[in-house]
Amino acid sequence: MAAKPEDKSLDDLFLDTLKDIYYAERQILKALPKMAKAAQSPDLRAGFEQHMQETEGHVERLEQVFELLGKPARGKTCDAILGIIEEGKSIMDEFKGTQALDAGLISSAQAVEHYEITRYGTLRTWAEQLGMSEAAKLFAATLEEEEATDSKLSELAVGSVNRKAA
Amino acid sequence: MAAKPEDKSLDDLFLDTLKDIYYAERQILKALPKMAKAAQSPDLRAGFEQHMQETEGHVERLEQVFELLGKPARGKTCDAILGIIEEGKSIMDEFKGTQALDAGLISSAQAVEHYEITRYGTLRTWAEQLGMSEAAKLFAATLEEEEATDSKLSELAVGSVNRKAA
Repeated sequence: MAAKPEDKSLDDLFLDTLKDIYYAERQILKALPKMAKAAQSPDLRAGFEQHMQETEGHVERLEQVFELLGKPARGKTCDAILGIIEEGKSIMDEFKGTQALDAGLISSAQAVEHYEITRYGTLRTWAEQLGMSEAAKLFAATLEEEEATDSKLSELAVGSVNRKAA
Repeated sequence: MAAKPEDKSLDDLFLDTLKDIYYAERQILKALPKMAKAAQSPDLRAGFEQHMQETEGHVERLEQVFELLGKPARGKTCDAILGIIEEGKSIMDEFKGTQALDAGLISSAQAVEHYEITRYGTLRTWAEQLGMSEAAKLFAATLEEEEATDSKLSELAVGSVNRKAA
Protein backbone atom coordinates (compact mmCIF):
# COMPACT_ATOMS: atom_id res chain seq x y z
CA MET A 1 0.00 0.00 0.00
CA ALA A 2 1.31 3.46 -0.84
CA ALA A 3 2.18 5.74 2.07
CA LYS A 4 -0.29 8.52 2.82
CA PRO A 5 1.07 11.71 1.21
CA GLU A 6 1.87 13.37 4.55
CA ASP A 7 3.86 10.32 5.67
CA LYS A 8 6.27 10.53 2.77
CA SER A 9 9.86 10.94 3.88
CA LEU A 10 13.42 11.02 2.65
CA ASP A 11 13.20 7.25 1.86
CA ASP A 12 10.49 7.96 -0.70
CA LEU A 13 12.39 10.89 -2.18
CA PHE A 14 15.50 8.69 -2.36
CA LEU A 15 13.63 5.94 -4.23
CA ASP A 16 12.03 8.47 -6.63
CA THR A 17 15.42 9.98 -7.44
CA LEU A 18 17.00 6.55 -7.85
CA LYS A 19 14.31 5.70 -10.44
CA ASP A 20 14.90 9.07 -12.11
CA ILE A 21 18.65 8.53 -12.58
CA TYR A 22 18.12 4.88 -13.58
CA TYR A 23 15.85 6.05 -16.40
CA ALA A 24 18.34 8.81 -17.26
CA GLU A 25 21.35 6.45 -17.44
CA ARG A 26 19.51 4.17 -19.84
CA GLN A 27 18.58 7.11 -22.07
CA ILE A 28 22.24 8.16 -22.03
CA LEU A 29 23.26 4.63 -23.06
CA LYS A 30 21.04 5.05 -26.14
CA ALA A 31 22.36 8.53 -26.96
CA LEU A 32 26.10 7.85 -26.61
CA PRO A 33 26.56 5.64 -29.72
CA LYS A 34 24.93 8.41 -31.82
CA MET A 35 27.27 11.00 -30.33
CA ALA A 36 30.30 8.75 -30.90
CA LYS A 37 29.26 8.21 -34.52
CA ALA A 38 28.77 11.95 -35.08
CA ALA A 39 32.11 13.00 -33.55
CA GLN A 40 34.74 14.19 -36.04
CA SER A 41 37.72 14.05 -33.69
CA PRO A 42 39.01 10.49 -33.12
CA ASP A 43 39.85 11.43 -29.51
CA LEU A 44 36.32 12.63 -28.87
CA ARG A 45 34.86 9.51 -30.47
CA ALA A 46 37.11 7.31 -28.30
CA GLY A 47 36.06 9.33 -25.24
CA PHE A 48 32.37 8.70 -25.95
CA GLU A 49 33.04 5.01 -26.50
CA GLN A 50 34.91 4.73 -23.22
CA HIS A 51 32.13 6.54 -21.42
CA MET A 52 29.59 4.14 -22.92
CA GLN A 53 31.34 1.26 -21.14
CA GLU A 54 31.49 3.23 -17.90
CA THR A 55 27.77 4.01 -18.22
CA GLU A 56 26.98 0.29 -18.41
CA GLY A 57 28.79 0.00 -15.08
CA HIS A 58 26.74 2.89 -13.66
CA VAL A 59 23.51 1.11 -14.60
CA GLU A 60 24.77 -2.03 -12.84
CA ARG A 61 25.64 -0.06 -9.70
CA LEU A 62 22.12 1.40 -9.65
CA GLU A 63 20.70 -2.12 -9.95
CA GLN A 64 22.81 -3.06 -6.92
CA VAL A 65 21.23 -0.20 -4.96
CA PHE A 66 17.72 -1.35 -5.94
CA GLU A 67 18.74 -4.80 -4.69
CA LEU A 68 20.01 -3.36 -1.39
CA LEU A 69 16.57 -1.73 -1.01
CA GLY A 70 14.81 -4.98 -1.92
CA LYS A 71 12.99 -3.19 -4.75
CA PRO A 72 12.73 -4.07 -8.44
CA ALA A 73 14.99 -1.93 -10.67
CA ARG A 74 12.54 0.38 -12.38
CA GLY A 75 12.94 3.74 -14.06
CA LYS A 76 10.66 6.77 -13.87
CA THR A 77 10.43 9.15 -16.83
CA CYS A 78 13.01 11.88 -16.33
CA ASP A 79 11.94 15.04 -18.18
CA ALA A 80 15.26 16.68 -17.40
CA ILE A 81 17.44 14.17 -19.26
CA LEU A 82 14.94 14.02 -22.13
CA GLY A 83 15.23 17.81 -22.49
CA ILE A 84 19.03 17.75 -22.26
CA ILE A 85 19.30 14.96 -24.87
CA GLU A 86 16.78 16.73 -27.13
CA GLU A 87 18.97 19.85 -27.10
CA GLY A 88 21.97 17.71 -27.97
CA LYS A 89 20.09 16.26 -30.96
CA SER A 90 19.19 19.75 -32.19
CA ILE A 91 22.85 20.75 -32.08
CA MET A 92 23.84 17.57 -33.96
CA ASP A 93 21.25 18.38 -36.65
CA GLU A 94 21.99 22.09 -36.90
CA PHE A 95 25.79 21.77 -36.92
CA LYS A 96 26.14 18.56 -38.94
CA GLY A 97 29.02 18.87 -41.39
CA THR A 98 30.37 22.06 -39.81
CA GLN A 99 33.65 22.73 -38.05
CA ALA A 100 31.73 23.56 -34.84
CA LEU A 101 30.02 20.15 -34.51
CA ASP A 102 32.51 18.64 -32.05
CA ALA A 103 32.42 21.73 -29.83
CA GLY A 104 28.64 21.37 -29.75
CA LEU A 105 28.85 17.65 -28.97
CA ILE A 106 31.16 18.38 -26.06
CA SER A 107 28.86 21.06 -24.66
CA SER A 108 25.90 18.64 -24.89
CA ALA A 109 27.86 15.84 -23.24
CA GLN A 110 28.92 18.16 -20.43
CA ALA A 111 25.28 19.13 -19.81
CA VAL A 112 24.54 15.40 -19.45
CA GLU A 113 27.50 14.94 -17.08
CA HIS A 114 26.41 17.84 -14.90
CA TYR A 115 22.92 16.42 -14.59
CA GLU A 116 24.42 13.14 -13.42
CA ILE A 117 26.87 14.89 -11.10
CA THR A 118 24.07 16.74 -9.31
CA ARG A 119 21.86 13.64 -8.98
CA TYR A 120 24.65 11.32 -7.76
CA GLY A 121 25.86 14.00 -5.33
CA THR A 122 22.35 14.27 -3.89
CA LEU A 123 21.87 10.49 -3.74
CA ARG A 124 25.21 9.95 -2.02
CA THR A 125 24.37 12.55 0.64
CA TRP A 126 20.88 11.11 1.20
CA ALA A 127 22.26 7.55 1.39
CA GLU A 128 24.67 8.69 4.13
CA GLN A 129 21.82 10.42 6.00
CA LEU A 130 19.72 7.23 5.73
CA GLY A 131 22.58 5.03 7.01
CA MET A 132 22.98 3.23 3.67
CA SER A 133 26.76 3.27 3.56
CA GLU A 134 27.05 0.58 0.87
CA ALA A 135 24.79 2.58 -1.48
CA ALA A 136 26.69 5.77 -0.63
CA LYS A 137 29.94 4.08 -1.75
CA LEU A 138 28.38 2.95 -5.05
CA PHE A 139 27.13 6.50 -5.78
CA ALA A 140 30.52 7.97 -4.84
CA ALA A 141 32.31 5.62 -7.27
CA THR A 142 30.03 6.66 -10.14
CA LEU A 143 30.21 10.33 -9.17
CA GLU A 144 34.01 10.19 -9.41
CA GLU A 145 33.81 8.76 -12.94
CA GLU A 146 31.26 11.37 -14.06
CA GLU A 147 33.47 14.16 -12.75
CA ALA A 148 36.52 12.67 -14.48
CA THR A 149 34.57 12.48 -17.76
CA ASP A 150 33.51 16.11 -17.41
CA SER A 151 37.14 17.16 -16.87
CA LYS A 152 38.35 15.10 -19.85
CA LEU A 153 35.73 16.77 -22.05
CA SER A 154 36.90 20.22 -20.91
CA GLU A 155 40.51 19.28 -21.72
CA LEU A 156 39.54 18.04 -25.18
CA ALA A 157 37.59 21.25 -25.84
CA VAL A 158 40.34 23.61 -24.74
CA GLY A 159 43.20 21.47 -26.08
CA SER A 160 42.03 21.05 -29.66
CA VAL A 161 38.34 21.01 -30.52
CA ASN A 162 37.50 24.69 -29.90
CA ARG A 163 40.46 25.88 -31.99
CA LYS A 164 39.23 23.89 -34.95
CA ALA A 165 35.70 25.18 -34.41
CA ALA A 166 36.55 28.87 -34.35
CA MET B 1 20.83 36.39 -44.44
CA ALA B 2 21.42 33.17 -42.55
CA ALA B 3 24.77 31.43 -43.04
CA LYS B 4 24.74 28.32 -45.23
CA PRO B 5 24.64 25.30 -42.91
CA GLU B 6 28.19 24.19 -43.72
CA ASP B 7 29.54 27.68 -42.97
CA LYS B 8 28.27 27.61 -39.39
CA SER B 9 31.03 28.06 -36.86
CA LEU B 10 31.73 28.54 -33.19
CA ASP B 11 30.22 32.06 -33.39
CA ASP B 12 26.86 30.55 -34.32
CA LEU B 13 27.08 27.91 -31.62
CA PHE B 14 28.01 30.63 -29.13
CA LEU B 15 24.97 32.75 -30.07
CA ASP B 16 22.64 29.70 -29.93
CA THR B 17 23.89 28.79 -26.45
CA LEU B 18 23.64 32.40 -25.29
CA LYS B 19 19.96 32.42 -26.36
CA ASP B 20 19.46 29.06 -24.62
CA ILE B 21 20.76 30.26 -21.25
CA TYR B 22 18.95 33.61 -21.60
CA TYR B 23 15.68 31.71 -21.97
CA ALA B 24 16.68 29.40 -19.10
CA GLU B 25 17.52 32.27 -16.71
CA ARG B 26 14.14 33.87 -17.32
CA GLN B 27 12.36 30.57 -16.64
CA ILE B 28 14.38 30.27 -13.43
CA LEU B 29 13.30 33.80 -12.44
CA LYS B 30 9.69 32.61 -12.72
CA ALA B 31 10.30 29.38 -10.77
CA LEU B 32 12.28 30.82 -7.83
CA PRO B 33 9.41 32.70 -6.11
CA LYS B 34 7.37 29.45 -6.11
CA MET B 35 10.27 27.55 -4.59
CA ALA B 36 10.82 30.25 -1.96
CA LYS B 37 7.10 30.19 -1.07
CA ALA B 38 7.14 26.38 -0.78
CA ALA B 39 10.27 26.18 1.42
CA GLN B 40 9.64 25.27 5.06
CA SER B 41 13.06 26.23 6.39
CA PRO B 42 13.46 30.02 6.80
CA ASP B 43 17.14 29.67 5.79
CA LEU B 44 16.21 27.90 2.58
CA ARG B 45 13.53 30.49 1.80
CA ALA B 46 16.06 33.28 2.37
CA GLY B 47 18.55 31.45 0.13
CA PHE B 48 16.04 31.26 -2.72
CA GLU B 49 15.17 34.95 -2.28
CA GLN B 50 18.82 35.95 -2.39
CA HIS B 51 19.37 33.83 -5.48
CA MET B 52 16.40 35.53 -7.15
CA GLN B 53 18.19 38.86 -6.88
CA GLU B 54 21.42 37.34 -8.18
CA THR B 55 19.49 35.80 -11.10
CA GLU B 56 18.22 39.26 -12.10
CA GLY B 57 21.88 40.28 -12.28
CA HIS B 58 22.68 37.22 -14.43
CA VAL B 59 19.96 38.22 -16.91
CA GLU B 60 21.45 41.72 -17.08
CA ARG B 61 24.95 40.33 -17.71
CA LEU B 62 23.56 38.20 -20.57
CA GLU B 63 21.94 41.33 -22.03
CA GLN B 64 25.36 43.01 -21.89
CA VAL B 65 26.84 40.13 -23.90
CA PHE B 66 24.07 40.46 -26.53
CA GLU B 67 24.97 44.16 -26.68
CA LEU B 68 28.67 43.36 -27.13
CA LEU B 69 27.66 41.15 -30.07
CA GLY B 70 25.40 43.88 -31.48
CA LYS B 71 22.45 41.48 -31.37
CA PRO B 72 19.00 41.85 -29.82
CA ALA B 73 18.60 39.94 -26.53
CA ARG B 74 16.40 37.04 -27.50
CA GLY B 75 15.82 33.65 -25.91
CA LYS B 76 15.47 30.29 -27.62
CA THR B 77 13.30 27.58 -26.03
CA CYS B 78 15.52 25.48 -23.78
CA ASP B 79 14.03 21.99 -23.39
CA ALA B 80 16.62 21.11 -20.77
CA ILE B 81 15.57 23.79 -18.26
CA LEU B 82 11.89 23.12 -18.95
CA GLY B 83 12.46 19.44 -18.07
CA ILE B 84 14.49 20.28 -14.96
CA ILE B 85 11.85 22.75 -13.72
CA GLU B 86 9.05 20.28 -14.53
CA GLU B 87 10.73 17.67 -12.32
CA GLY B 88 11.03 20.25 -9.56
CA LYS B 89 7.28 20.95 -9.82
CA SER B 90 6.49 17.23 -9.55
CA ILE B 91 8.56 17.00 -6.37
CA MET B 92 6.80 20.07 -4.93
CA ASP B 93 3.42 18.47 -5.68
CA GLU B 94 4.29 14.97 -4.49
CA PHE B 95 6.04 16.02 -1.28
CA LYS B 96 3.85 19.00 -0.33
CA GLY B 97 3.21 18.98 3.41
CA THR B 98 5.84 16.31 4.13
CA GLN B 99 9.05 16.50 6.10
CA ALA B 100 11.03 15.68 2.93
CA LEU B 101 9.82 18.69 0.92
CA ASP B 102 12.83 20.93 1.63
CA ALA B 103 15.29 18.15 0.77
CA GLY B 104 13.46 17.78 -2.56
CA LEU B 105 13.49 21.53 -3.18
CA ILE B 106 17.24 21.59 -2.61
CA SER B 107 17.85 18.69 -5.00
CA SER B 108 15.75 20.44 -7.66
CA ALA B 109 17.54 23.73 -7.14
CA GLN B 110 20.92 22.00 -7.42
CA ALA B 111 19.88 20.42 -10.72
CA VAL B 112 19.09 23.94 -11.96
CA GLU B 113 22.44 25.24 -10.69
CA HIS B 114 24.36 22.44 -12.40
CA TYR B 115 22.66 23.20 -15.70
CA GLU B 116 23.74 26.81 -15.39
CA ILE B 117 27.26 25.83 -14.28
CA THR B 118 27.79 23.69 -17.38
CA ARG B 119 26.40 26.32 -19.78
CA TYR B 120 28.33 29.25 -18.26
CA GLY B 121 31.51 27.16 -18.18
CA THR B 122 31.11 26.36 -21.88
CA LEU B 123 30.25 29.96 -22.78
CA ARG B 124 33.23 31.35 -20.88
CA THR B 125 35.61 28.94 -22.66
CA TRP B 126 34.13 29.73 -26.08
CA ALA B 127 34.25 33.49 -25.39
CA GLU B 128 37.97 33.16 -24.60
CA GLN B 129 38.53 31.13 -27.78
CA LEU B 130 36.66 33.79 -29.80
CA GLY B 131 38.72 36.64 -28.27
CA MET B 132 35.70 38.10 -26.42
CA SER B 133 37.45 38.78 -23.14
CA GLU B 134 34.76 41.16 -21.84
CA ALA B 135 32.06 38.51 -22.33
CA ALA B 136 34.31 35.85 -20.77
CA LYS B 137 34.60 38.02 -17.64
CA LEU B 138 30.82 38.45 -17.40
CA PHE B 139 30.28 34.66 -17.70
CA ALA B 140 33.01 33.98 -15.12
CA ALA B 141 31.34 36.35 -12.62
CA THR B 142 27.99 34.58 -12.99
CA LEU B 143 29.62 31.14 -12.91
CA GLU B 144 31.22 32.01 -9.57
CA GLU B 145 27.83 32.97 -8.10
CA GLU B 146 26.16 29.80 -9.41
CA GLU B 147 28.90 27.65 -7.88
CA ALA B 148 28.59 29.51 -4.57
CA THR B 149 24.81 28.94 -4.58
CA ASP B 150 25.30 25.22 -5.26
CA SER B 151 27.73 24.99 -2.32
CA LYS B 152 25.37 26.89 -0.01
CA LEU B 153 22.54 24.51 -0.93
CA SER B 154 24.77 21.50 -0.12
CA GLU B 155 25.62 23.04 3.26
CA LEU B 156 21.96 23.67 4.06
CA ALA B 157 21.09 20.08 3.10
CA VAL B 158 23.82 18.45 5.14
CA GLY B 159 23.65 20.94 8.01
CA SER B 160 19.95 20.71 8.81
CA VAL B 161 17.40 19.93 6.09
CA ASN B 162 18.26 16.25 5.47
CA ARG B 163 18.13 15.42 9.17
CA LYS B 164 14.62 16.82 9.41
CA ALA B 165 13.61 14.92 6.27
CA ALA B 166 14.81 11.49 7.37
